[in-house]
Amino acid sequence: MPAEPKQQRALKTRDDILRGAALAFEDFGYKGASMREIAARSGVTLGAVYFHFAGKQELARAVILAQPDVMVPKLQSVGIQRLVDLTLVWAHEINANPVMRAAVRLAVEQQAHGIEEDTSFQEWEVLFRKWLEEARDEGELAPGASTGAVAEFMVGAMTGMQHHARLTGKINTLGDRVVRMWQLLLPGLTTPDVAARLDLDPRRGAA
Amino acid sequence: MPAEPKQQRALKTRDDILRGAALAFEDFGYKGASMREIAARSGVTLGAVYFHFAGKQELARAVILAQPDVMVPKLQSVGIQRLVDLTLVWAHEINANPVMRAAVRLAVEQQAHGIEEDTSFQEWEVLFRKWLEEARDEGELAPGASTGAVAEFMVGAMTGMQHHARLTGKINTLGDRVVRMWQLLLPGLTTPDVAARLDLDPRRGAA
Repeated sequence: MPAEPKQQRALKTRDDILRGAALAFEDFGYKGASMREIAARSGVTLGAVYFHFAGKQELARAVILAQPDVMVPKLQSVGIQRLVDLTLVWAHEINANPVMRAAVRLAVEQQAHGIEEDTSFQEWEVLFRKWLEEARDEGELAPGASTGAVAEFMVGAMTGMQHHARLTGKINTLGDRVVRMWQLLLPGLTTPDVAARLDLDPRRGAA
Repeated sequence: MPAEPKQQRALKTRDDILRGAALAFEDFGYKGASMREIAARSGVTLGAVYFHFAGKQELARAVILAQPDVMVPKLQSVGIQRLVDLTLVWAHEINANPVMRAAVRLAVEQQAHGIEEDTSFQEWEVLFRKWLEEARDEGELAPGASTGAVAEFMVGAMTGMQHHARLTGKINTLGDRVVRMWQLLLPGLTTPDVAARLDLDPRRGAA
């Protein structure tokens, strides 16, 4: 059997550490999670953690930035349905994937920890706008709908709705909240016939 | 001149402390702001701070809970226009009033500081729903619009939009973001003629 290539092994170790850090942040909070605890949760040595990350802040930043990597819908879709699917996968992953859950929590609390990392918000906005513009090319948007305004609004609204759901102990309702967001936005965003043929089943996020 | 009643003086001291705490939290963050610094900013003794608040967590909780008190629009309005005015005052106050600014920041970051205080979110939701129901009584809502779903969505969306605006250094755009939220929501929420007669000028928040 050929030896596992060195670079691939390093990437796997890095992923293990991100996951271990996410679990430690979840259980102890950012402040309470020590680098030693993170190493233990990752199944690697403390030295390996420091080989990959200079410290806890850099690790937190990497967790925040890992978000879009896990956000690729497996279902085939285009235009506005693609954007719907992306938001449903997001809601599902926050419930199912500890790295994602830690990432959104850190993104919200970051300033309390002395971190300034708005790249992930910008990436979401760019991604949303891209699919809205595709929807426009497909003739799915209502005349006058501004893709920039909608993308910016969605980033803020989704950030807040997951925070609100988590703080009130109802993070498992996030998929339903995303569906309600679409029900509220679609009348102004698309034509009635496009809205009628969209599939808003939250289970699409787990598919 | 009659002596200032004791209770009234105590209330004023309490307000001064809330304001001093808000200023200190803003400059040093929650972690960095000492009770001594908060006393200095409030213009009261350290003993007076501890007379009113057991500690920094209780003070932070009081700042969070002070939100709705500053949120009374001075303009006369009813129904959906009243709700619009409320959100515009909110955007204005976050820019103009340090207690409000500290309150929303603490509400977002609270779990990082070991605080669990979702009362303010619930109060907002109740308030929004009340005005939506009045709008329904006035015949302003589209048939099928759910006041509960809209109120819940607005709380999350507004929480997130102020966070997003602040993190990207654009908190001064909050009034415009609120207006865009209304432009996106109104087509599904009201009838076209109600939407057309609403005044969405962000300067209503400062009136």
